[in-house]
Amino acid sequence: MTETTDVLAAVRERVDPTPAERERLAETAARLVERAEDAIAELSVEADVVRVGSTARGTWVRGDRDIDVFVRFQPTLERAELERYGLHVGNDVLPEGHEEYAEHPYVKGEFEGYDVDLVPCYDVDSARDIRSAVDRTPFHTEYLDARLTDELAADVRVFKQFLKGIGAYGSDLKTRGFSGYLSELLVVEYGGFEAVMEAAADAWQPPVHLDPEDHADASFDDPLVVIDPTDPERNVAAVVSAANVARLQHYARRFREDPREAYFFPEPRDPLDAAAVRERLAERGTHALAVRFDDDALLGLVEDERYPQLRRSLDGLVRGLENHGFEVLRGDTWSAETAVLVCELSVAELPDVERHRGPPVSVGEHAAGFYGKYADDPEVTGPYIDGGRYVVERERDVTTAREFAERKLASVALGKRLASLVENGDYEVYAGAEVGALAAEFGVEFADYFDPRP
Amino acid sequence: MTETTDVLAAVRERVDPTPAERERLAETAARLVERAEDAIAELSVEADVVRVGSTARGTWVRGDRDIDVFVRFQPTLERAELERYGLHVGNDVLPEGHEEYAEHPYVKGEFEGYDVDLVPCYDVDSARDIRSAVDRTPFHTEYLDARLTDELAADVRVFKQFLKGIGAYGSDLKTRGFSGYLSELLVVEYGGFEAVMEAAADAWQPPVHLDPEDHADASFDDPLVVIDPTDPERNVAAVVSAANVARLQHYARRFREDPREAYFFPEPRDPLDAAAVRERLAERGTHALAVRFDDDALLGLVEDERYPQLRRSLDGLVRGLENHGFEVLRGDTWSAETAVLVCELSVAELPDVERHRGPPVSVGEHAAGFYGKYADDPEVTGPYIDGGRYVVERERDVTTAREFAERKLASVALGKRLASLVENGDYEVYAGAEVGALAAEFGVEFADYFDPRP
Repeated sequence: MTETTDVLAAVRERVDPTPAERERLAETAARLVERAEDAIAELSVEADVVRVGSTARGTWVRGDRDIDVFVRFQPTLERAELERYGLHVGNDVLPEGHEEYAEHPYVKGEFEGYDVDLVPCYDVDSARDIRSAVDRTPFHTEYLDARLTDELAADVRVFKQFLKGIGAYGSDLKTRGFSGYLSELLVVEYGGFEAVMEAAADAWQPPVHLDPEDHADASFDDPLVVIDPTDPERNVAAVVSAANVARLQHYARRFREDPREAYFFPEPRDPLDAAAVRERLAERGTHALAVRFDDDALLGLVEDERYPQLRRSLDGLVRGLENHGFEVLRGDTWSAETAVLVCELSVAELPDVERHRGPPVSVGEHAAGFYGKYADDPEVTGPYIDGGRYVVERERDVTTAREFAERKLASVALGKRLASLVENGDYEVYAGAEVGALAAEFGVEFADYFDPRP
Repeated sequence: MTETTDVLAAVRERVDPTPAERERLAETAARLVERAEDAIAELSVEADVVRVGSTARGTWVRGDRDIDVFVRFQPTLERAELERYGLHVGNDVLPEGHEEYAEHPYVKGEFEGYDVDLVPCYDVDSARDIRSAVDRTPFHTEYLDARLTDELAADVRVFKQFLKGIGAYGSDLKTRGFSGYLSELLVVEYGGFEAVMEAAADAWQPPVHLDPEDHADASFDDPLVVIDPTDPERNVAAVVSAANVARLQHYARRFREDPREAYFFPEPRDPLDAAAVRERLAERGTHALAVRFDDDALLGLVEDERYPQLRRSLDGLVRGLENHGFEVLRGDTWSAETAVLVCELSVAELPDVERHRGPPVSVGEHAAGFYGKYADDPEVTGPYIDGGRYVVERERDVTTAREFAERKLASVALGKRLASLVENGDYEVYAGAEVGALAAEFGVEFADYFDPRP
């Protein structure tokens, strides 16, 4: 246990904000609130200003520089008015900022070295009455403020860093991991970082169901369900993938068996170069296939829109290859300057013939139709009878993986932007050792791919 | 219809025995019966002599030279006595004959150019009281004698020739087709050859159930069920494979659409030579694998014992290959001077790695065991997490089809004799173009294989 204590102390040493950092943040946040209140005063509207998020709750990890300021308007205000007033206040507070759009517009900008979101919302009576998702946020802060002791806040920081270290932190659609709010809820619910580790390691049997306020009012089909204490109809963990739940369970067990700082701060991977990628493929005896997109319309999408499309397209590619007889060992999708779908196949080439099973001979017209279609086709072997069915061996539509990617990609289910790029032939295919060329951009991803961690 | 009538007349011209053939057979059969009766008279035992089979019922196809003579003893006779008397009579009648063994011994031999079986059986009151399968045979002849007009007997000959032509005649375990008795029952039941064709073409929906005497006293799980009119517990068609039922349906439809003598007397296939086999494989882009056995213990087995073992072994080989990741397009087994199992595979070689899915990470001990087994194995990629499960990519046990046949054949389900041959390494493996060498022995089988008919 001393070992665990030592490791956690060392982690806290790295993740707890310094006193100077706290002080500076408090001062900056106070100035922001004041500027917002001044801006409201200039308008003939009733509103108050609240801080939300981890820097409001003291659960931020050293070095985080996000300050979230919400301006709450009365629910009687028209939405168009709320947006107009909200942007007005935002632009007043953050004159260098720019507008972004979630459910409604808000202003994002830098202020004294901090990244600030200035978000308008409605001041509803309870989280059940919200008009948009952001209205819920102040309730989260209220709920947690009442429960987070200094010790629990410190454990939240440790837990967040653990999730970052294992690659499971963040509710963005690339990561599909644990949000900050979810991390805080888990620490509060179990009573500390080590208690979360113990539960994840030993007790969790997905689907895991937690309901701190015992008020669930909906059912969810997710591997992890944590009912929002401020909203009985919401699963705070809805975005968390099965893999990330398993990942937390795995590393929680590892940590409890052998506590090490390295789980919190893993060594970054050295990128592989093209030669190394080709060497690894040769060792494995597999055949790689990659499809690469280099188009602004796709790459300009925010990650939360781009990754779901890339994943959907990867699934389509894998299913398409498998439907055409190519066994896929593994696939992945990466995006940086360009976006790629990468698959590793068992074989590069399939025979010229494929087996095609027809109907049972007994099903009169259907059987006669099948027989008639193939009986006089000199390209076809058969029809012959296997069991009680007609079978033919006919020419395979595509015999190489490259050919599939070049000719059949449009026939699989793809994300929307990718579908139109494929439609126009606006993509490049890399097959076999050619895939090595992608290492220039995705060397770290290849390193992860060939030596994957849980 | 005239066309059909013409074709059938032409077929009858070729299958009806000539008057001279009938006369000669009648005389020979009479002499055989007389000799058998004389032999019985020398023994102090009560018995009578009956002729059975197609030559007794006038349903043989021209050129058939089988005469079956049964000696019926009283059921009170001990089995050992029956066997002794039976062989005594058999050896008296067929002094040049030899003993064979079905359920009990009988004598087989040539007599005046005919192949004669002289079989002892019990003279029971009904087919339900039989002590062994041969006791039933005289009842079949009695049943059919009462129903076969000359016209129906002629139609039986036509139907038998049709079944021969399409490769579905014979209840032996190589063919798994229609026996002579079954052919006769179908013609009698439907009232003629064309009526059988019509039923098979249009009405049959396997499982097909026929019960001429409407007395079935058991249920059967076969594609064609024809309850024996002399035994309510027996399916006369039990041995008929689903493929042969489908084959009859297929060719019945063909014949009705386009009546041709060729269905009855197909052209024999020209054998392929080694070069042709290699060429066909190259065209198809497939990889052949054959296992050849050249051992007297296997090849000395009668076909009814050998073929089930060969088929079972082929199934085992195919399943084994598929379990090791090799897709099998088609397989077959042939036997002549040697015996072979032949498979045609999509690929010759698989990658060095294979995916191995472990348990869900959540299932504590099992998951920990899997992780522990592979975590420090430098030969293994992973464990990583996919969905909620551990996955590793580990070295594939066999990467080529040849290696499978050489190293893993003993691990699959094989027929008994083949299992011991494989155990001792007493077999040869042919892979890829090498398989061409088997054309010297199996040239016709290869011709059928590469251009299969229904």
